[in-house]
Amino acid sequence: MERFPIKQGVPGFKFAGIPAGIKDDSVKDLGLIFAEHPCSAAAVFTKNSVKAAPVLVCAEKTKNNSIQAVLVNSGNANACTGQQGIKDTHKTSDTLALELDLKSTLIAPFSTGVIGVKFPTQRIIKRLPELIKNLSAQNSKDFAESILTTDTCIKTSAFKDTINGEPVKVLGIAKGSGMIMPNMATMLAFIVTDISIEKKSLKSLLKEINEETFNMISVDGDMSTNDSVIVLSSNMSKTPITNKCSKTYDTFKKMLHQVMMELAEMIVKDGEGATKLIKITVKNAKTDSDAKKAAMQVANSCLVKTAFFGEDFNWGRIMGALGSSGASFDMNRVALFFNKIAAVQNGQGIEKNILRLKKTVKKSEIDLLIDLKNGEKSCGVSTCDLSYEYVRINADYTT
Amino acid sequence: MERFPIKQGVPGFKFAGIPAGIKDDSVKDLGLIFAEHPCSAAAVFTKNSVKAAPVLVCAEKTKNNSIQAVLVNSGNANACTGQQGIKDTHKTSDTLALELDLKSTLIAPFSTGVIGVKFPTQRIIKRLPELIKNLSAQNSKDFAESILTTDTCIKTSAFKDTINGEPVKVLGIAKGSGMIMPNMATMLAFIVTDISIEKKSLKSLLKEINEETFNMISVDGDMSTNDSVIVLSSNMSKTPITNKCSKTYDTFKKMLHQVMMELAEMIVKDGEGATKLIKITVKNAKTDSDAKKAAMQVANSCLVKTAFFGEDFNWGRIMGALGSSGASFDMNRVALFFNKIAAVQNGQGIEKNILRLKKTVKKSEIDLLIDLKNGEKSCGVSTCDLSYEYVRINADYTT
Repeated sequence: MERFPIKQGVPGFKFAGIPAGIKDDSVKDLGLIFAEHPCSAAAVFTKNSVKAAPVLVCAEKTKNNSIQAVLVNSGNANACTGQQGIKDTHKTSDTLALELDLKSTLIAPFSTGVIGVKFPTQRIIKRLPELIKNLSAQNSKDFAESILTTDTCIKTSAFKDTINGEPVKVLGIAKGSGMIMPNMATMLAFIVTDISIEKKSLKSLLKEINEETFNMISVDGDMSTNDSVIVLSSNMSKTPITNKCSKTYDTFKKMLHQVMMELAEMIVKDGEGATKLIKITVKNAKTDSDAKKAAMQVANSCLVKTAFFGEDFNWGRIMGALGSSGASFDMNRVALFFNKIAAVQNGQGIEKNILRLKKTVKKSEIDLLIDLKNGEKSCGVSTCDLSYEYVRINADYTT
Repeated sequence: MERFPIKQGVPGFKFAGIPAGIKDDSVKDLGLIFAEHPCSAAAVFTKNSVKAAPVLVCAEKTKNNSIQAVLVNSGNANACTGQQGIKDTHKTSDTLALELDLKSTLIAPFSTGVIGVKFPTQRIIKRLPELIKNLSAQNSKDFAESILTTDTCIKTSAFKDTINGEPVKVLGIAKGSGMIMPNMATMLAFIVTDISIEKKSLKSLLKEINEETFNMISVDGDMSTNDSVIVLSSNMSKTPITNKCSKTYDTFKKMLHQVMMELAEMIVKDGEGATKLIKITVKNAKTDSDAKKAAMQVANSCLVKTAFFGEDFNWGRIMGALGSSGASFDMNRVALFFNKIAAVQNGQGIEKNILRLKKTVKKSEIDLLIDLKNGEKSCGVSTCDLSYEYVRINADYTT
């Protein structure tokens, strides 16, 4: 498995991204992925019960159908827009289908941006011909730019490998930023591959890897109305994945996991106002649920996150968060490590390490290991710190 | 029921607060409440499983015993200090008992401040004689000052009424600030009264009112290791409360509720960096649990809180928080009101009210009414906004 430049694309796919005037500032805000043939598709969506119109429509479309094109806009979430929002989603998809000469069921729609504002259907429809004209196998960067909101950079990850001597590729493109939290959250991810795999296997694989990657990151504990992850396979490689015990399956699984994990970490690193990536591992918990509860409570604690922003190895707040997580453990057995340096043993601070700890929390990436010494289960969650910039962005920006 | 100046005190109680050098800056950090006779006592404590030493000791002492003195220090939480912390708590209590010529079981200890730092037992013990010398019925303000940490002001509430022509009083003193969240959190509250009531009734009353007041506020969703609320009754009034159906019981209940509710709101208003008090009411939820889940999710959403700081009536984020709360409702029926002005009906924004809404969110107190239209249950939670100042305080301050 090795990286490849995203410009090289993936056999069977073309990309485009253009400004369509949805955002004020003439940046790219309309994107398209188009496949030469209908693809195997699998998708997962936000568990928020307030779902945006495109999420409702797209979930229905991806359930059983193949997908041949993905239409995404940023700047307007088309959420809390009622029946009109649903109609607007269909209208843009249907118009694109006509222009591409496809059945409308083959178009998967996605939106991200401000909630509760009427969807700019006409503005988007008017720009579809130009969007299609821009399609090219090399244009994934334009697409990656067109889906951003408060993100400060594009997020892509691309790996290739060989199966039976034939090259296969996985290319992922994502956006994230605020509202990132388990069960995803204003994040969109689009993954394309030329692996030959049937829909059913792709679905179960996406679900499994999603739990370990996008559902294990948290920026601010908020979950959005629009999160979606979709994987499209053009099935152009000659060796089909037929069963879970094959080497082919393993190879693809590793590539997909790597791409999704990298995108997930990029999203956390670029969390609104983030200055540090905090990788939290809880080990030796009594149950899986305990491990996850403990890790998430620490990841979402405003007090813990502001301490990291202040470059303070404030283990007291971590103990406080653990204690309020509902996970079962004995506070007098807990051990904490910052970048492998012991801060707490048996529930109490280790004074001799203070200088080394003060130094290590200044790093831009911190591994926080929490040993509950109460079992054998573990869980990893990535998060970021909570800064002035987070407050500035979210006090100023209407989502 | 009417207010009275705290300087007038409550029959049977004396107060003191002095600097003991626990904090660096020679402010008051050691407080004492002393009763002429052993009091009926009831207390509730943090549900955080990481409990500070004084919480463990005090919970044991208040379970069955009367209490005659309350010793509080700020600046050091005596949390995550292991067996030594427990010994230190006993040592200071025992020394105070000797000085006051009481049994040690009659002393209830409390601490708040930095976690994980060795308790300054000797420093405190040395100052006990001066603390006792300062005891006076008028000194409740000194006591109120001595328990503060990042609070910007003292928090007191005092009401009197008459029962059978005889005056009765309830005086409450609290500290709050960061880490405020359901099940209380770095908050301490001390309430004294001259009502005659037995321990059992006092306990059930405290538990009931605590659920409606201190457990219904949230500053940052964090729960501390040290939260405690204690009520002491000197039993000096001549009409004892004997049963729950009496007018006397009602009168006392109203007074205690008023005092605890006022203290709870003061804590939210003085939440770290808070610029606004947000009173959230969820109504017409299907179940009590749904109402509470929905209200708490909105109250603890960083995105909602930063929007209020930015004076943005960002109802989309409120819808997003509701949807991720797990409460059952139909997003197309929800209505939202800011200070009684409708922002959302049937899950969609009301454009004609935008100007009025923009104006009303500039107020320092905002009533947010959320109508789920899915049942008949309701719940109220008070919270504050999330500001630069919250980040500054918590990035700089080691708790």
